[in-house]
Amino acid sequence: MQDILNILKIGGKLLADEDQLLEMLRVFTAMEGHKILVHGGGNRANELIKELGIEPKMINGRRITDAATLEIVTMVYAGLINKGLVARLQAMQCPAIGLSGADGNTILAHKRIVKDIDYGFAGDIDAVGVDTFKHLVSGGLVPVCCAITHDGKGQLLNTNADTIASRLAVALAPHYRVHLQYSFERPGVLKDPSNDNSVISRLDRASYLQYKADGIITDGMIPKLDNAFAGLDAGVSEIVIGNPAAMAAGKATVIS
Amino acid sequence: MQDILNILKIGGKLLADEDQLLEMLRVFTAMEGHKILVHGGGNRANELIKELGIEPKMINGRRITDAATLEIVTMVYAGLINKGLVARLQAMQCPAIGLSGADGNTILAHKRIVKDIDYGFAGDIDAVGVDTFKHLVSGGLVPVCCAITHDGKGQLLNTNADTIASRLAVALAPHYRVHLQYSFERPGVLKDPSNDNSVISRLDRASYLQYKADGIITDGMIPKLDNAFAGLDAGVSEIVIGNPAAMAAGKATVIS
Repeated sequence: MQDILNILKIGGKLLADEDQLLEMLRVFTAMEGHKILVHGGGNRANELIKELGIEPKMINGRRITDAATLEIVTMVYAGLINKGLVARLQAMQCPAIGLSGADGNTILAHKRIVKDIDYGFAGDIDAVGVDTFKHLVSGGLVPVCCAITHDGKGQLLNTNADTIASRLAVALAPHYRVHLQYSFERPGVLKDPSNDNSVISRLDRASYLQYKADGIITDGMIPKLDNAFAGLDAGVSEIVIGNPAAMAAGKATVIS
Repeated sequence: MQDILNILKIGGKLLADEDQLLEMLRVFTAMEGHKILVHGGGNRANELIKELGIEPKMINGRRITDAATLEIVTMVYAGLINKGLVARLQAMQCPAIGLSGADGNTILAHKRIVKDIDYGFAGDIDAVGVDTFKHLVSGGLVPVCCAITHDGKGQLLNTNADTIASRLAVALAPHYRVHLQYSFERPGVLKDPSNDNSVISRLDRASYLQYKADGIITDGMIPKLDNAFAGLDAGVSEIVIGNPAAMAAGKATVIS
């Protein structure tokens, strides 16, 4: 029987709400088995970019990472947010250790190839440092991964945190029973976006296709769920989507 | 026979000179045995403080760390500088892993007690996470420590990097043959501050006291050297002070 490894992704809106964030960190700390936290950036990077008089550049919802922006996201994601999360977790007796993808070569990426759009210093993942993660968790440590990766040649890169969580889950699935959990502000995948009591408790591929065909699951949920089902295909044992309260109560959406 | 553990402190002026810095990182990468790098902050934090319209506050050469300044030094030390060093070391095949004192609870501190001066979020070290360091280096990893610590209750703190290097050396001395190396822009402790060819090759306590009495060693070197001799008393095997070229050539000052 393999050990359980929980991988929890915390999204941007949760990071901005201290009460929800602390609740999520308490739920995370209480999870049994090995653990990895993956976090996005929240809004602080955009604020700092504005304070420094740089204009944030976005195309199709993706940040264009020029050199000045890379410097700022490295400071905010790997410095401010990552160390703030680690310090809060340590205060909860959770033995957190913060990582960028450069640390221990945990996430190796390459600068995104320019086709139509030059995303700048955006990184697409090539490899996960499975041995480093195994060594850290075997010592009882809890990796806390930010959305900064590196190319192995000295260049840091900006990488989507949802993708990092999913790639970690897939890479570690041969070694652990991986439970992947995407936390966001909603209690789960909803039948009615205006009603938080309409959580779909269990979503399999057939019902997902039906909900999509019926126009019930739309927009932003589709890439998340496509990612989730791809994770299941690649050996991830369980995938859950919801907010801290729903996760703690076992009422978030289980993808199966 | 205990394993060798090299602890190298890189000072602010070296961080600002890319050629010297890369030479120092190459020398560090080539060192045999286990390794830990400790780095100061350099000037980027002060620049960013100014760009954001905050006035840097210093008293007696020490930074006064208010909440806004703590946020910035956390971003610059733990984010920008730490991850930049880790990425450069990884490119040299040195398996670096960046840490603040919160990460793995590696350096626990308390907020400096206010006597005459309130230094704000400045941390005085209480404990070193020896087991975490031992676990990391046993896995072939190379910790890269920045000058941010934590109080175990969720608060990050700003701590002098020279002191971190010295406290790590003392705490790890029972477990390894610790070689502590302070790198700075000069080739070593000089008999004549205006002449880089006047390096004192070996400095013992008797000759140190004589040099001090003769007014040859003065000012900024005295706290560094007092720290160094205290380290020797506490079981550190060897202490070297100098620049990368002098260290590589074995021509830096050896404290014994």
